[in-house]
Order: sequence, then C-alpha cells, then structure tokens
Amino acid sequence: MRIVVDANVPAAETCFGELGEVVRVPGRAIDAAALREADALVVRSITRVDEALLADAPRLRFVGTCTIGTDHVDERALAGRGVAFASAPGCNAEAVVDYVLCSLATLAERQGWRLAERRIGIVGVGNVGGRLLERLSAMGIDCLACDPPRVEAENVEAEGAAKLASFADLDTLIDQCDVLCLHTPLVSEGPHATLQLLDAQRIAALAPGSVLLNAGRGDCVDGKALRQRLAGQADISAVLDVWEHEPAIDSGLADLAAIATPHVAGYSLDGKLRGTHQIYRALARHVGLPARLTMDDLAPSPSVARLVLDGGLSPEEVLRLCLRAVYDARRDHDSLHREARRQGVAKGFDACRAAYPLRREFATLAIELLEGARELAPLLSGAGFRVATATA
Amino acid sequence: MRIVVDANVPAAETCFGELGEVVRVPGRAIDAAALREADALVVRSITRVDEALLADAPRLRFVGTCTIGTDHVDERALAGRGVAFASAPGCNAEAVVDYVLCSLATLAERQGWRLAERRIGIVGVGNVGGRLLERLSAMGIDCLACDPPRVEAENVEAEGAAKLASFADLDTLIDQCDVLCLHTPLVSEGPHATLQLLDAQRIAALAPGSVLLNAGRGDCVDGKALRQRLAGQADISAVLDVWEHEPAIDSGLADLAAIATPHVAGYSLDGKLRGTHQIYRALARHVGLPARLTMDDLAPSPSVARLVLDGGLSPEEVLRLCLRAVYDARRDHDSLHREARRQGVAKGFDACRAAYPLRREFATLAIELLEGARELAPLLSGAGFRVATATA
Ligand SMILES: NC(=O)c1ccc[n+]([C@@H]2O[C@H](COP(=O)([O-])OP(=O)(O)OC[C@H]3O[C@@H](n4cnc5c(N)ncnc54)[C@H](O)[C@@H]3O)[C@@H](O)[C@H]2O)c1
Ligand SMILES: NC(=O)c1ccc[n+]([C@@H]2O[C@H](COP(=O)([O-])OP(=O)(O)OC[C@H]3O[C@@H](n4cnc5c(N)ncnc54)[C@H](O)[C@@H]3O)[C@@H](O)[C@H]2O)c1
Repeated sequence: MRIVVDANVPAAETCFGELGEVVRVPGRAIDAAALREADALVVRSITRVDEALLADAPRLRFVGTCTIGTDHVDERALAGRGVAFASAPGCNAEAVVDYVLCSLATLAERQGWRLAERRIGIVGVGNVGGRLLERLSAMGIDCLACDPPRVEAENVEAEGAAKLASFADLDTLIDQCDVLCLHTPLVSEGPHATLQLLDAQRIAALAPGSVLLNAGRGDCVDGKALRQRLAGQADISAVLDVWEHEPAIDSGLADLAAIATPHVAGYSLDGKLRGTHQIYRALARHVGLPARLTMDDLAPSPSVARLVLDGGLSPEEVLRLCLRAVYDARRDHDSLHREARRQGVAKGFDACRAAYPLRREFATLAIELLEGARELAPLLSGAGFRVATATA
Repeated sequence: MRIVVDANVPAAETCFGELGEVVRVPGRAIDAAALREADALVVRSITRVDEALLADAPRLRFVGTCTIGTDHVDERALAGRGVAFASAPGCNAEAVVDYVLCSLATLAERQGWRLAERRIGIVGVGNVGGRLLERLSAMGIDCLACDPPRVEAENVEAEGAAKLASFADLDTLIDQCDVLCLHTPLVSEGPHATLQLLDAQRIAALAPGSVLLNAGRGDCVDGKALRQRLAGQADISAVLDVWEHEPAIDSGLADLAAIATPHVAGYSLDGKLRGTHQIYRALARHVGLPARLTMDDLAPSPSVARLVLDGGLSPEEVLRLCLRAVYDARRDHDSLHREARRQGVAKGFDACRAAYPLRREFATLAIELLEGARELAPLLSGAGFRVATATA
C-alpha cells in the first residue's frame, strides 16, 4: 500500500510505515499527479481535498486528515468515489483544557481568589468542554454545563438523561457562575446558532468580578460589546484565545484582556501526535491490519520528567506550580503583545502561531508526592497529571 | 545563661536552646524589665536597643540582631557598657540574588532576548552584589562591576587589585551594559554618596532597550526622572523592589515598572533562618561554646523537593522553569498592584509585606539532569541550584 502523507505530519514514518510504503510530500505540493499511484492520502488542513485533486487517483481508497477541522475536505466528492474518510476529532482537546486550567489558575493568583470557591460554567460540552467538565469535576470544582444540542439528542435515553442532569441553559449559567468558558463551534443559523452567542445583552448580564473565557470560536462573542465593558466598567476579566477577524484582531480588545493569546490553546506536541495516531488507527481498521503502536510509542520522553513534592504549600500553590512546569499561558500572552507591537497585530498574530514552540500536555509530567503532600493526589490527578505517592 | 529572644525569631529554641535558657518575648514588649535577669538579648529590627532599654540589665553581655540593618541599635551605648554586639550581614543576600535572576529571566522572556547575550552591570559589590557577580559569572554571563569604596579600600593589596580588575566607574557601566543592577546602601554624603546616584542625567544616558533594576535603596534613584523616561520615551524597562518614600510610593512609577514589588527581594525563609544562625554562632563564639548546629539542622525540607529534567528545551527555558519552580517575581508584582487598588498604595505596600509567604531559596531545589540535559549542569549550578547528573 502506497500512502502519501503531508511532510508536516509528525511521526508519519513510524505510524504509517507499519501499514505500507510512506511517500512524504509537502502539503501545498500534494496535487493530482502525486496521487496517481496512491492507495491512501493523509493530510493536514493546508491541502484542499476536492474533485480536482481526486481526478486521476484510481487506486485511492482512504483519505485522512490529522486535524479536527474538515472544512478543507469535500466529503461528498470522496463518498461519490467510494473513498473512505477519517478526521481526528478531539485530538487537541486535552491541550485546550490545559490552557483553560492554566489561565484560570493565573487569574486566581493575580486577583486573589481560589479556584475551589468558584463555580465554572461550561458552554459547549463536546470534545473540549466534556474533558474540561471531567477534569474540573475530578478536582472537586463546582461546574454547570450548557449544551442544548446534546440535551436534545441524548436525553431520550435514560443514561443520557442522568448524565445531563447538571445541564442548564446559557442564561442560567450567566446568572449562577463566576467563570464562563466557551467551547462551542461556530454555527451561523438554526435554533442553536452560536454566532454572537454572547451578545451585548448577555455580556451586560455578566456579574461584576466574573471571568469570560473563549477558546471556541471568536465569532461566538460580540467583541465590541466585550471591549466596551472591559474599557468602561472594567469589572470583569476576559481570557481570549480566539477572536473575530483572525489574524486582524481588535488590538484594543487584546490590550484589555487579562490573558490574550493567538489561537494556540490547542497547540501541543501530544495533540499533533494524537492526530497522526487517530488517522493511523482509522487506516489500519480500514485495511484490516492491527494498529500495534500506542501514543506512548510516538511521544518523545518529556523534558520535564518528574517533579517531587513535599508538604508546606497550599493546594493552589502546588497546582500552579505543576501547571506552569508544563505550560504558562503568560508566555503566549506576552509574545502576542510583543509581536503585535513589533510587526502590527495581524502579522504578529500569525508570526506567533508559525513560530509556536509546541508544548507538552499535563499528562506527560510525573508528579511524585512525598508523605507531606499525599493528600494532594486527587487534585493533581484530577487536573491531568500522572501522580504517584511514595514514602520519603 | 538566660537568653531573651524576640518571639518572631524563627528556630530560636533549637539554636539558642543549645547555649542556655531561652525566654521568648514579643519584639515590642522587650523593655528594661524584661532584661533584668538576661545574659544575652536577640532582637529583630522592631526593638530599639538604646540607653533606656539597657538601664537595668546588670548581667547583659551580648546583644545580637538577626537582621542586616543596625539602625535600631545604639552601638555606642552597648560599647560603653562592655556589651558585645553582632548583626547578621548578608543573611538575606542569596534571596535578593534569586529575585534578580528571576526578574531578569522574566523580562528576557517577555521582551524576547537572551540573558546570555546581555552584559550586566552591578553597582555596589557587597554581600548582595558580590554574590550576584559570582552567580552570573558562573552562569557564563558577562558582567561589569562598580564599587569605588571597595576599590579604594582594597586595591592597595596585590590580591585585591587582581580581583577588582573588572571594576569600572558608574558611567562606564551605563555606557557599556544592557542591564544595570543597583545594590548600594543609602549613603547621603561624602565622595561615594549614593543618594540619587542614578540622577536625571544618568537616567537620560541609559541606552534604549536597557533595564534598570533597583534592589538596594529607593533613594539611590531619582524616581521622578525615571518615571518621566518610562512614561515619555518608554524605551527602557524598570524592575523596582525599593522605592522613595516607602510605603507611600509613587504609584504612577509602580504602574510603569515592568516588575514592581514591595521591598521583598530579601524575604526568604532561609534568609530569616540564616539570620538566627549567624547570631547563634556569634553568641556561641562569645561565650566559648561550640556551635554544633548547621543551617541544614534549621531549615525544613523544601516543598519542591526535586525536579528531574531531560533534553529538548533551550537553556533559557530550563532556567526559567527552575527559577519559577522556587520563586516567580510576577506573583509579588501582581499582589502589590492588587492590594494597591484595594486599599491604597501605602497600605497595600505594607499589607503585602506583612502577609508575605516566605519563599525558599534556589539552593533548596535539587535538580536531577538526565542524559539529554547534562550539559545544563554548569548553568543551573551557577544559578544556585543543587544539581546532580544521573543516567536515565
Ligand atoms: N482554541 C483552540 O486552539 C481550539 C482547539 C480545539 C478546538 N477549538 C474549537 O473549540 C470548539 C469546540 O471544539 P470541540 O472539539 O469540543 O468540538 P465538538 O464538536 O466536539 O463539541 C462542540 C459542542 O458544542 C455544542 N454546541 C453546539 N451549539 C451549541 C450552543 N448553541 N450552545 C451550547 N453548546 C453548543 C455541541 O453540541 C457540541 O457538544 C470548536 O469550535 C473548535 O474549533 C479551538
Ligand atoms: N531589597 C531587599 O529586600 C534588600 C535585601 C537585602 C539588602 N538590601 C539593600 O541592598 C543594599 C546592599 O546590601 P548588602 O548587604 O550587599 O550591603 P553591603 O554593605 O554588604 O554592600 C554594599 C556595597 O555597596 C558599595 N558602595 C557604597 N557606596 C557605593 C557607591 N557610591 N557606588 C558603588 N558602590 C558603593 C559598598 O562599598 C559595598 O561593597 C543595602 O542598602 C541593603 O539595605 C535590600
């Protein structure tokens, strides 16, 4: 089997080499000619997969994209030719959850509150929001979730209804939560449209002292209304990773946000490798071969290998320490502002993304808790770290 | 021997209990009556030691202050009564060096430069400045030092002259360095006065892009001139831990400083314990008893016990990670600004100091370097960490 793979897909030889012959081609150079002999194609979002590309690919039976987005793929064209298709939903969801925990812990420290005493509202409980809900709940933090499409689709089943018991509508979340985390896709029309989901009226309804975090899509929030509230009353805080009009974002809004980052919440090395791994498994399944490699076979050993902790610090201090040993969102905030000053906001936004030093995920850090820190195990494993307790 | 000790001196029972009977008295309650039976007195800066206090203390033979400052002690009065005196010079110098390294690493990250490519000027090469020079040099960072009183006093001796070869005058440092670190005491008069040492003219002479750090005394810098340069040209950065008119500092200047902290650079638990230990040794020497306890006997085991690192990160990233695992100056910057907003600048300044969570020093963190990170040993041990290399 001949597998054409975008040259930017990491660990492609290791994974796809198990299943066939791997031909690496730069994403922009993947054209009809490149697919003439191909049995499978593996892309990232830079390659448009459409009729034109498929015109002369008689052997092609599988296309996979190692990304969560599928806008660059004409799925109808593939189906029409009997070519199987797979994408990598949720591959970078853990990284986004890391980003959220790190940002909220930083705001808590800066503003002098404790995460444990706040109620977090999660809007959009899919791959990202669902994992966020799991981790926060495991950390013992009070959450309220909102996902009308899921409620509609799932609450017919008994099990689904139980799971969804803590789901509420958006205005209830706005009313009852201290922190609102948006993880919705952009839906322009219909009963559950998310375009301007946080409109001027809802932004006005946010309680003083509350935090609005958006790591879903920029167009889900009315940026102008948010900017006015931040500049005028200045009584709420915003954490923004996604923006209207990326990369030409509103630099006034970026200056007012407590944490402003250039759409990098999902940028982890592990997420990229997970994308490869998901498509590798899909292809293996498609051709009926075993997928013997696990994520552990792909991921390099982490630079921060182990952290040994003893008692003496508060749970909040320990949590911050561990989060930041892996990722500190202030780095990305600082570099967005620096590059925006240097080269203008749109160029700076793209430059930060292009030069992004892919980070590792929390699960790569082994934390060893000595006697005095043992009681922190649930908090830290809930947050996503690999925790072991040991006697000193 | 009866030893009266300020109740706020940590580890007093452990240390002074080796030498005699310890009587704990709150610092403000130490009066003449409390000293009637005392053979020795151990204070912090809150207790004024003067004629009035000593009036009725026939057995007193030793006074020690566990602080570097001695302004609260009338040394003449002590000498006149034949009472020996000791202070704890340099006890918190390591903590200040930690602060400087952490602040510079943070600025470097934020502004996108590398510490290794900058030349650091150190003004005042005493307990703090001397240790800073040692650590930076061990890290391979280019330094230039300035200390005219030392040059005058020491360059008569051959050895002294060699050591001082890299010393220059202040205007040379301003001309040739990218970062200027002030660690001078306040000297109001004489040829080497430090009052307004960085005056308007010298502040104007700082090169665009340079950094001015002051952790010596606030009055060594013309705050108004600095504020004007930061507000106007906005082309240099300031790191300020000490201020004119503390605690009623210029909040406009604090807002403009890249890092602004409330005179806490020296606030480490280890520094406090070292103060106790220095006075314990002085008293033991004075009474001819052995001082068997070491600093290791006093200091509790650190909360961050060990960090195990492997390759994959740049030296700068690793350095920041290690520094921040122990101390992050942004915490103190954030709390000063938060408390200044909440309760006004003077009250906020004092509140931060009063509630300061004493930090540990870099030397308490054991860093284990696996194969891939071995070459970082000189950098990290130079920075002050306890470094061990191990095979994976
Ligand atoms: N910032 C980043 O770097 C980053 C990384 C990954 C994903 N994302 C974005 O985050 C969003 C979520 O990603 P995902 O992988 O979890 O997607 P997903 O499709 O798995 O989940 C989205 C969820 O939102 C729900 N939803 C839809 N309309 C809603 C509405 N009106 N109100 C409440 N909930 C609604 C859906 O029912 C679904 O459960 C996407 O837009 C994605 O592009 C951003
Ligand atoms: N920010 C803090 O938390 C903190 C902590 C410790 C010390 N300090 C302050 O830092 C300063 C230095 O402390 P130290 O323990 O190193 O004192 P030190 O007396 O050991 O050293 C001071 C040095 O400055 C030199 N000096 C004096 N006048 C000078 C001049 N005009 N130009 C250049 N050098 C000059 C002296 O010769 C001496 O070597 C003191 O003012 C102290 O109060 C601040």
